[in-house]
Amino acid sequence: MFFASDNTGPVHPKIMDALSEANTGYAMPYGDDAMMDRVRDQIREVFEAPEAAVYLVSTGTASNSLILATLAQPWETIFCSPVAHIHEDECNAPEFFTGGSKLTLVTAPNAKIDADKLRRKIEAEENRGVHGPQRGPLSITQVTERGTIYSVAEITALCSVAKSYNMPTHLDGARFANAMVTLGCTPAEMTWKAGVDAVSFGGTKNGCMGVEAVIFFDPKHAWEFELRRKRGAHLPSKNRYLAAQMSAYLSDDLWLDLAKASNAATARLKAGLKKIENTSFLYEPEANIIFAGWPRSAHARLHDAGAQYHIIEGALEGDNPDEILTARLVCDWSMTEAKIDQFLDLARG
Amino acid sequence: MFFASDNTGPVHPKIMDALSEANTGYAMPYGDDAMMDRVRDQIREVFEAPEAAVYLVSTGTASNSLILATLAQPWETIFCSPVAHIHEDECNAPEFFTGGSKLTLVTAPNAKIDADKLRRKIEAEENRGVHGPQRGPLSITQVTERGTIYSVAEITALCSVAKSYNMPTHLDGARFANAMVTLGCTPAEMTWKAGVDAVSFGGTKNGCMGVEAVIFFDPKHAWEFELRRKRGAHLPSKNRYLAAQMSAYLSDDLWLDLAKASNAATARLKAGLKKIENTSFLYEPEANIIFAGWPRSAHARLHDAGAQYHIIEGALEGDNPDEILTARLVCDWSMTEAKIDQFLDLARG
Amino acid sequence: MFFASDNTGPVHPKIMDALSEANTGYAMPYGDDAMMDRVRDQIREVFEAPEAAVYLVSTGTASNSLILATLAQPWETIFCSPVAHIHEDECNAPEFFTGGSKLTLVTAPNAKIDADKLRRKIEAEENRGVHGPQRGPLSITQVTERGTIYSVAEITALCSVAKSYNMPTHLDGARFANAMVTLGCTPAEMTWKAGVDAVSFGGTKNGCMGVEAVIFFDPKHAWEFELRRKRGAHLPSKNRYLAAQMSAYLSDDLWLDLAKASNAATARLKAGLKKIENTSFLYEPEANIIFAGWPRSAHARLHDAGAQYHIIEGALEGDNPDEILTARLVCDWSMTEAKIDQFLDLARG
Amino acid sequence: MFFASDNTGPVHPKIMDALSEANTGYAMPYGDDAMMDRVRDQIREVFEAPEAAVYLVSTGTASNSLILATLAQPWETIFCSPVAHIHEDECNAPEFFTGGSKLTLVTAPNAKIDADKLRRKIEAEENRGVHGPQRGPLSITQVTERGTIYSVAEITALCSVAKSYNMPTHLDGARFANAMVTLGCTPAEMTWKAGVDAVSFGGTKNGCMGVEAVIFFDPKHAWEFELRRKRGAHLPSKNRYLAAQMSAYLSDDLWLDLAKASNAATARLKAGLKKIENTSFLYEPEANIIFAGWPRSAHARLHDAGAQYHIIEGALEGDNPDEILTARLVCDWSMTEAKIDQFLDLARG
Repeated sequence: MFFASDNTGPVHPKIMDALSEANTGYAMPYGDDAMMDRVRDQIREVFEAPEAAVYLVSTGTASNSLILATLAQPWETIFCSPVAHIHEDECNAPEFFTGGSKLTLVTAPNAKIDADKLRRKIEAEENRGVHGPQRGPLSITQVTERGTIYSVAEITALCSVAKSYNMPTHLDGARFANAMVTLGCTPAEMTWKAGVDAVSFGGTKNGCMGVEAVIFFDPKHAWEFELRRKRGAHLPSKNRYLAAQMSAYLSDDLWLDLAKASNAATARLKAGLKKIENTSFLYEPEANIIFAGWPRSAHARLHDAGAQYHIIEGALEGDNPDEILTARLVCDWSMTEAKIDQFLDLARG
Repeated sequence: MFFASDNTGPVHPKIMDALSEANTGYAMPYGDDAMMDRVRDQIREVFEAPEAAVYLVSTGTASNSLILATLAQPWETIFCSPVAHIHEDECNAPEFFTGGSKLTLVTAPNAKIDADKLRRKIEAEENRGVHGPQRGPLSITQVTERGTIYSVAEITALCSVAKSYNMPTHLDGARFANAMVTLGCTPAEMTWKAGVDAVSFGGTKNGCMGVEAVIFFDPKHAWEFELRRKRGAHLPSKNRYLAAQMSAYLSDDLWLDLAKASNAATARLKAGLKKIENTSFLYEPEANIIFAGWPRSAHARLHDAGAQYHIIEGALEGDNPDEILTARLVCDWSMTEAKIDQFLDLARG
Repeated sequence: MFFASDNTGPVHPKIMDALSEANTGYAMPYGDDAMMDRVRDQIREVFEAPEAAVYLVSTGTASNSLILATLAQPWETIFCSPVAHIHEDECNAPEFFTGGSKLTLVTAPNAKIDADKLRRKIEAEENRGVHGPQRGPLSITQVTERGTIYSVAEITALCSVAKSYNMPTHLDGARFANAMVTLGCTPAEMTWKAGVDAVSFGGTKNGCMGVEAVIFFDPKHAWEFELRRKRGAHLPSKNRYLAAQMSAYLSDDLWLDLAKASNAATARLKAGLKKIENTSFLYEPEANIIFAGWPRSAHARLHDAGAQYHIIEGALEGDNPDEILTARLVCDWSMTEAKIDQFLDLARG
Repeated sequence: MFFASDNTGPVHPKIMDALSEANTGYAMPYGDDAMMDRVRDQIREVFEAPEAAVYLVSTGTASNSLILATLAQPWETIFCSPVAHIHEDECNAPEFFTGGSKLTLVTAPNAKIDADKLRRKIEAEENRGVHGPQRGPLSITQVTERGTIYSVAEITALCSVAKSYNMPTHLDGARFANAMVTLGCTPAEMTWKAGVDAVSFGGTKNGCMGVEAVIFFDPKHAWEFELRRKRGAHLPSKNRYLAAQMSAYLSDDLWLDLAKASNAATARLKAGLKKIENTSFLYEPEANIIFAGWPRSAHARLHDAGAQYHIIEGALEGDNPDEILTARLVCDWSMTEAKIDQFLDLARG
């Protein structure tokens, strides 16, 4: 019963097969391999973006930080939500890679930045001339860190605000596929057609071994990004093994099938939890993450039975068995109905 | 005929098998997996260093830069050879990760730093009080970037000079195994017993997919390194797949067998080249790298037949067929005698 | 009628005299001058801190940023108020000098950080292991950026919270003297006795030409600070002219007399404004800064008569003569009663 | 007998007078003062550069580092001489301000970079694609750190090499006036007409209190520089006192008169030393710096009599009275003939 994160799950067999197939003879290093050419073509086709600059890195933090460093000057501030991964969970990597940009937190109900509040925050910066930070990129996360999803219209509205101030835009798509599956839109609609300039396109959390694609829709950023990637020690010599993963991931709709699987698992879990008395939801789960609370006694039962997940408010230890503790539950592509039902049985008591 | 680099070769089947074996069910992310515990134990045992702090990253530049950032202050200077990978081939990554340390180049005949010259260079720094850079770590590469090897006595002498100034020491061991095989010494003899404080222990160039171990013999550096690794976006979420590689690499002497194979292939190539008239060697090859020159006409023949390698002095294009052009040839573990002999035939003309 | 800032005023004649007196013959550079020895002694005596490390720099931002860089690691976050000068008015200098530390904003009614809210913010950081920023220094401003003043008890409470988490503490004292004069306490009581580790001790805004003292009560920071200062290009070669200013400033209670003068001028201005109908105060002025609002029509009159000050909410241009616009008014040591009365006459209409 | 540095001397009375004159009433801060407008006009006129962007900072290291950070990307390398102030005497400030640029040292006989060697060094960089550092600015020092002077033709040749690689050029003119006086050329001839893009125009070493002008001949760099200056904590609030110095310095040829005085003093010292047996010169002194050697016994006599200067090779302490120790002697504008003759008498023995 592993609900701790979608990065605790296994690699999908098709990805493993692709690695084996890539493992024949010699190949040029540093992205000059034929497989990388194929990945570039696939991503350009999937995103309907024939000019896009496409790169692979091995972690999501690398993808986010290197993109933001390319889009932001060190004297600028990046606008993001208070629960953004780039703010809360990257140990100041964006600040490091940008050379000291600031992050300005914009109020975000349900972890989704509000366009009006964004405008107000933007207005509050770059109004002190050389003294304050200058306006830098907007960065949003889709699926958000709380499991909610921006509609295409909401992304369009946010990017429109940013564009009105000549600010570039970044989408942290660690769970890109999960959002797309829920929205039923195209990759282009969720990104450049809505005004997004650069995307961290996640693979690792959705069945890959360790690969994220960096996509700039305007190739003018290409060379600077390549230098920043190398300088950040994120240019893999044996790039073909990253490319093999990403290529298999994008082939035959594997990426969408895996996201559908994890979303469906989460929906089953959500439905089961909703039927349990004393269970409360902090956010309406829209993809593969659930934030829900239930009494300590049930947590204890789950824990003793070996269920793995994070309690994010409250502590398992405590006297009052009725106190509500909030859990974060994440389903990956490999989650089985049996495990979910086992979990629900235990939660029910 | 791929002699361009040992990072163009395939992954050894045992490493691939280990990845498949690791791909079962869930595992804790970020290095909290059981496989990582095993790797830590293996490295501690191999290095006879039960207290060592051990980490995995996916690139050699990450390993070098993160170690140097942990050992150096930004107002210090790192002493290295003029052909050090950290100086020539990392696009200022050490400067980036340290926050602006300087690199002081010490004359290095055959790419090996000379102890006396090191002492003189050290004396020439930190003698201007607060005005000049302060003395930082010594970094040496073993096998060197020119294919030569420091003896254990030479490493001991260099570290002894560094220690007399309280300077920490780093060994860039991208080709660690190849050096060991040549020297016939133990890992401990080549490192901490000789005075080395931290090692970049390479796997990628010797049959792994993309994994390097970071070893600090004094665990006091552990927590700072972990923070720097995360901040540098080099903490892999699915760490188990790095651990699986490294564990297989260190099992059953695989790492040594692979190094023996690439060294032996290189020896065969060297012996063959030595017999060819008009062939000159810039350095005496001691591991799996050869720098040798021969006439343009022979290069052209090789090139037309599809041989892949870097010409580092001179250009393939040119009028004079007798002009000597220098090639860098590297053999990886998978190089076959047949390919070497084919190469030699072409070189012979 | 210059109420724009206390850095628009002239240098006090005694400071000018000190510069002339220092201008005789040769003196050792970089702080090795006899005048610097004197300044060090004076500050140690004034602060009852015989061990303190004392340095001079020429700007307040340098003082703040260099101190924070000495106290904070780049993977940490600095706790400060949302209106802190280090956050709003230094163009990311703290992020630059620290190498990418984050700033965590703590709710601060009247621009004064609340101890309970500080504790909650601290608890919310460094609870995600290596993933989130680690807890760094607390930085408070006295006089605050809104003209309010922490009591000694409040500073003590805040530092006590910080100390309970082993966090170092910094006081931005750009208007240190103005606060002391209001509080009637000693420098020691407002700093190290209350738990402050390092102080930016301002001179420029209070009658000097351009000098701020950096004070670390624990001299263990001394050498690192000296290296950071030099590396930040803030080590003046002709340091004696900074020392001469600071020495005169601290002699014969000049610094206190000047602060009394500016506080008294502000009190007169405040009293006058309070008598004017339709005048509102955003904060209760406690030192030499006033945030007050009155109708646009009165602003227009003042503006046309040449009064200089910042309108921080609303714009001078606008149709409605009755709309309330908020002004920030600052009095320096040289502000005359005549100018204040002239201003009040105009404000009154 | 102060020959330690030209930054140990006093401020010229006309500069002091200018400070007093500037000290009347209020003035806008941060460079918005009328005096700064005047300085800008003066520099543009003196340099025949009506479009130039002009700024003031208080240290030479700030001037150099901020200019280089504006001209260089962090993945580039700056070409300079092995004895360049930016390399030897700024404690890694250029590396800090650029965010980690490298410095590539070009052989420089007599401390003057040779154009052919520059070309060779440039060719040796940016030839490894993304792996090595990219080519950044050329930085030369005039007067050099060894007291020699580039001819206008030499500067032109060096800049021409740089321009042929699209590299920007910087001139560290800490002793700009001393060079001009020797060469008898115009400021424009020594800078933009010769291909220099940006100048650190020194005042502090030549009779000012602490002011250096930053000059970009192409104003496109203006806004970025202003942000970098503020972020570097080098924007003085009471800028008028820097402007007053620089304005007086440039008025009535004061800057040239002071340089003539220090050059003349040095010439007298040189002539005297040349007549003394056993005196050797490391470089032919062309401005106000002398590197010369004479026996320890004479050094001891000078030292005992209170002469102040740096011994840069050898140590005053030692057994052999005949050993030659090398001194660096610098004359500032206030050096008197009497002091020089006193020094020579002692040197003579």
